[in-house]
Amino acid sequence: MTHSTSLVLMADVLETLRQKSLLVDEQLKQLLPPAEGQAIPEVRELYSSAWDYNLRGGKRLRPALCLLSCEAFGGNPQDALNTAAALELLQNFLLIHDDIEDASDMRRGKPCLNKLHGDAFAINSGDFVHAWMWRCLLANKPVLGATKTFAVMREFVQQLETTAEGQAMEIAWVRDGKWDVSEEDYFELVKRKTANYTITRPLRLGAIIAGATKRQADSLNAAGEKLGIAFQIQDDILNLAPPGEAYGKETAGDLYEGKRTLILSRALSKMKDAERGEALASLSKPRAQKTPEEMARVLELVKKTGALDYCRKKARQLASQAREQLSKKLFGLPDSQAKSDIFALVDFIVEREY
Amino acid sequence: MTHSTSLVLMADVLETLRQKSLLVDEQLKQLLPPAEGQAIPEVRELYSSAWDYNLRGGKRLRPALCLLSCEAFGGNPQDALNTAAALELLQNFLLIHDDIEDASDMRRGKPCLNKLHGDAFAINSGDFVHAWMWRCLLANKPVLGATKTFAVMREFVQQLETTAEGQAMEIAWVRDGKWDVSEEDYFELVKRKTANYTITRPLRLGAIIAGATKRQADSLNAAGEKLGIAFQIQDDILNLAPPGEAYGKETAGDLYEGKRTLILSRALSKMKDAERGEALASLSKPRAQKTPEEMARVLELVKKTGALDYCRKKARQLASQAREQLSKKLFGLPDSQAKSDIFALVDFIVEREY
Repeated sequence: MTHSTSLVLMADVLETLRQKSLLVDEQLKQLLPPAEGQAIPEVRELYSSAWDYNLRGGKRLRPALCLLSCEAFGGNPQDALNTAAALELLQNFLLIHDDIEDASDMRRGKPCLNKLHGDAFAINSGDFVHAWMWRCLLANKPVLGATKTFAVMREFVQQLETTAEGQAMEIAWVRDGKWDVSEEDYFELVKRKTANYTITRPLRLGAIIAGATKRQADSLNAAGEKLGIAFQIQDDILNLAPPGEAYGKETAGDLYEGKRTLILSRALSKMKDAERGEALASLSKPRAQKTPEEMARVLELVKKTGALDYCRKKARQLASQAREQLSKKLFGLPDSQAKSDIFALVDFIVEREY
Repeated sequence: MTHSTSLVLMADVLETLRQKSLLVDEQLKQLLPPAEGQAIPEVRELYSSAWDYNLRGGKRLRPALCLLSCEAFGGNPQDALNTAAALELLQNFLLIHDDIEDASDMRRGKPCLNKLHGDAFAINSGDFVHAWMWRCLLANKPVLGATKTFAVMREFVQQLETTAEGQAMEIAWVRDGKWDVSEEDYFELVKRKTANYTITRPLRLGAIIAGATKRQADSLNAAGEKLGIAFQIQDDILNLAPPGEAYGKETAGDLYEGKRTLILSRALSKMKDAERGEALASLSKPRAQKTPEEMARVLELVKKTGALDYCRKKARQLASQAREQLSKKLFGLPDSQAKSDIFALVDFIVEREY
């Protein structure tokens, strides 16, 4: 692919995401109560903060994949709108809680809810947005009928459990000071924490809503998992080596948070003993004691090992395998704009710069 | 009621709660995956901690009310078991998150999850138990059919929203240092935060599962609300004036947490200016700076105002009004053990010592 084709493709993908975003925002406004109607000021504050957060933007990759998958499988994407909105709320509630758990600072270009309003407010807001997610899923009944509505709900329950499992792994690693994270460990974590709800689940949900069989839905799992891991690796790369202003989180925030990434796993395994000792001493400090100078030094040590390039290659490799698997699985479906949009998104996942 | 009758009744109520508890524990074990099956140690830890918490005990008042209401309305209490289990999980996940938000120490006679494993682990555990709640609700489908299953789910979504609203009020009051909480403010808070999911919702859910009309279910709201407020006032009294060992939370924990209660609202309004100033200065300190001596002094000032007696009277008054309303609403139902058990529970709510 030449550079200019790639730029054109990227613009197309961003336009696709933007259009799906508008649909999702519209659907959220249809389904959920506005803040204005709330008479008690403290309750109104809860509602308006939730609305503010839900409309902050973000890529809206997950709802877009769900809508496109539904269409590619021959369904009416309108039928997937409630579920797409629910996927966005799932993501938002997980991010709100994740940012407390990691003591993060920035999200989508603004301070995290825990920074704006404190941990207590943020925990409660996450629970509130989670409740709204179920409100969206209940709205599926008149559109999809009972059987599909329950099938979609079962996917969400499994998703919630899987994500909590991944989160538990990450939290335990940080708590226990575990730094000898192997590539396999990392994959087990990311499969649960990210891959599933970012790629696999949205694709499955779209297919289920379109009326695909369980077998067809299951056939998407392997590709979804690979692509989801590629997505997370790219996320980790962007965190340590952000290309510009568009990235909405703090730079090298992962080092401050002590997040276990494939980059760090690779870098630590490649460092000489003295450098590894130095890096681990800095990384193991509590967040508040980490200085920008120290983190810059860790980043320098990491870069020296070539871990960033290794991970870039790994992400591309996984994405290309996923693309091939997905081509086979979607081969039987008629050609459509939705189908080609899905493949454009697959490329976007490892080419994106935000 | 003589003292000895009251003791006999109390023993009966405790036996009713114990029996329902066993049913709920059994149902949880039927519906949810055991920790043993989990291969990854960090995931197994999440599961076993969730199981440990769910089986800690507690009164199990909410599931009991749901089962009894179903039976009183002519339903088969077996049909309400999944929902009763879900109510217990709702309560557990709310307590896990609430204890983080309030930085509480003890729950059901053991340290809170945030004290045992840290805030991050506890937030995630709450989300995990919340997911399990939905797993129980989805299991209703083959038992209740689609229509009732959705009706029950709608009740849970409303419940989650209402509780988050109440929580938001309390968090904002603490954050903003608001101590001039009127009786009306307090009732608005408690209606949302406690009354609804403790009394009203379990009664409604049992009725809905038994096949009651929406009108019948709605007719329970007013009594449920009064009784729920009485329950919370009694909880607040037990916190400041615990009768013995059975109480599973820290004594006067509400003063350390700076919780706004009817007792404090009343006491502050009755104190002389100098004493109010002294009490507020102590209460407004961050939790870590509050000493046992200081809190004992605040408690002494509170007791001097007669606020505890005022609140005891208020709780009994509300419970007795609720009892009367409930008698009218349940009047048309055939006499049954379940019906009389409900009224015994109504009395228990303000007579209980734990």
